Amino acid sequence: MNTTNRAMARLQASCADKGPLCVGLDTDPTHLPPEVLKKYPSPADAVLAYNLALIGTTAPHAGCFKVQIAYYEALGIAGLSAYSATLKAVRAAGVPVIADVKRGDIADTAKAYARAHFSGDFEADIITVNPYMGFDTLEPFLEFVESAGKGAFVLLRTSNPGMKDVEWLPLSDEGAAAAGVGAGSRVLDAVGAALSRIGERFGSDGVAPFGAVVGCTEEEDARALRDRYPNLFFLIPGYGAQGGAARIAATLLDRAGGTVNSSRGILTAWKKDPSLAAARDAGTLTLADIAAAGGRAALEAKNDLLGAKALLAGDRR
Amino acid sequence: MNTTNRAMARLQASCADKGPLCVGLDTDPTHLPPEVLKKYPSPADAVLAYNLALIGTTAPHAGCFKVQIAYYEALGIAGLSAYSATLKAVRAAGVPVIADVKRGDIADTAKAYARAHFSGDFEADIITVNPYMGFDTLEPFLEFVESAGKGAFVLLRTSNPGMKDVEWLPLSDEGAAAAGVGAGSRVLDAVGAALSRIGERFGSDGVAPFGAVVGCTEEEDARALRDRYPNLFFLIPGYGAQGGAARIAATLLDRAGGTVNSSRGILTAWKKDPSLAAARDAGTLTLADIAAAGGRAALEAKNDLLGAKALLAGDRR
Repeated sequence: MNTTNRAMARLQASCADKGPLCVGLDTDPTHLPPEVLKKYPSPADAVLAYNLALIGTTAPHAGCFKVQIAYYEALGIAGLSAYSATLKAVRAAGVPVIADVKRGDIADTAKAYARAHFSGDFEADIITVNPYMGFDTLEPFLEFVESAGKGAFVLLRTSNPGMKDVEWLPLSDEGAAAAGVGAGSRVLDAVGAALSRIGERFGSDGVAPFGAVVGCTEEEDARALRDRYPNLFFLIPGYGAQGGAARIAATLLDRAGGTVNSSRGILTAWKKDPSLAAARDAGTLTLADIAAAGGRAALEAKNDLLGAKALLAGDRR
Repeated sequence: MNTTNRAMARLQASCADKGPLCVGLDTDPTHLPPEVLKKYPSPADAVLAYNLALIGTTAPHAGCFKVQIAYYEALGIAGLSAYSATLKAVRAAGVPVIADVKRGDIADTAKAYARAHFSGDFEADIITVNPYMGFDTLEPFLEFVESAGKGAFVLLRTSNPGMKDVEWLPLSDEGAAAAGVGAGSRVLDAVGAALSRIGERFGSDGVAPFGAVVGCTEEEDARALRDRYPNLFFLIPGYGAQGGAARIAATLLDRAGGTVNSSRGILTAWKKDPSLAAARDAGTLTLADIAAAGGRAALEAKNDLLGAKALLAGDRR
């Protein structure tokens, strides 16, 4: 078996080169000022135009992009055409793209999802996957790992309050033994252990095809998770608008590393950008203005993350 | 609060009237014979034509329809146009339609999924939802329950072998207490208890907005789950092509009832239908032939389920 996953290796190289920021194109029409929105024949057209402009201004600071399909599905067929064009534009720019689809289903249905998001109109490099139905639901994605070098991030520990409802529940000793994890483990550890096992199939020197989605709101939790899964590459949401701090993200970037998503903070940077105050008040913002504000916010986020990483490394010396 | 959910009440009335069969339109181009497929300009056009014909022949025997979006996503934009047209056709036929999308995400993203599948191009009556990220991810769907009378089935216990990996893991006493369930409970019980609590908000006389997806391969498991959640309406996959038997389905149909999905057995009924042997061998099957075979298979499935239900009721007298 090939021990290096192409998509994950590209992603990791890109994040090493350009910094750990993942620019999130979770673009909703409400993220645009009305004076820009009204220039386009439909909300989906406006969203696509904004994405194309943002890809231009943020790509220099982006280790990767993540596109959240929910916002495009909400706009129907036109929205999904904009989604498809957005993926193509990121791929054309040569930056790795993660499709945040959180799909999860069994057998032939999972194969259909793999075809949907690893080929054709909605082809991405890497997708996000939900493990609730069990680890046989991951296998169909592994076929594309082998044949097309694609990768996936599996939901492990999310940063929303509800993460305590399922992910965080402690297992009985019997449950832990069944999952092949130690006493005192939680549901998420069963998932983490499965991902580590899949990684081992790819050899300890290679780049594993599956990473994990890990969000934390406390540094202590972040440290514990990072140390428990030293070999998993993390997709880290919850930085910026979701209230996470750079230091928590930097903790999760330790060991095997990861990429840190910021969506809202970049998409709506024009609402707070001091240089746009006059145009904002006058209602004369342009697409170029708001995309430039996104670019500045991306650079700031990247520097914030790199600074926190350096501080953390300094603390440990 | 309105104690009767409109979509779930319609679904339950329809299943009481026309039987518990849920016809699954998990339609893939490979489900059509080549001589029919080649008559259409694209695979998506062929899939839509087959769906429209099948809706006609199976609606008299269908308590509801379920459309699995994965097969349409796999065909890209054209596939999702066929998906949209399929949903509209089922709704126009006056039969409740479940969108099997298994979405699950947090906050604004969950709201976007709710807009996507409860309004616009992809409007369905009821959707399926994945609870891994926690019960705050269910709340945005409840807004559409209130405002538009929509409903949802939440994944509880699935019939694939991997269900043991997460759903079936036993909780520690601490975990059970945190989830508000009894000692010895499993992960799926945390989900079931949350669904029961949501149901109680709607009053004990009403029809709850959330049901549960429950698949079993053993009758004993089915009986235990049915008795543990007497008030949840079940969406039951795994009948027919997935190897489940009518008796297990009938067990799950007890108490609050449910609807039993058959997809493959209906979609590919033409492959085994004795009356089509000559046309099959000659490669001269028509769309009308294969849709008629689907209609016969749906009637047979309905009668099989009703027979098993009657037998089970007889056993208990």
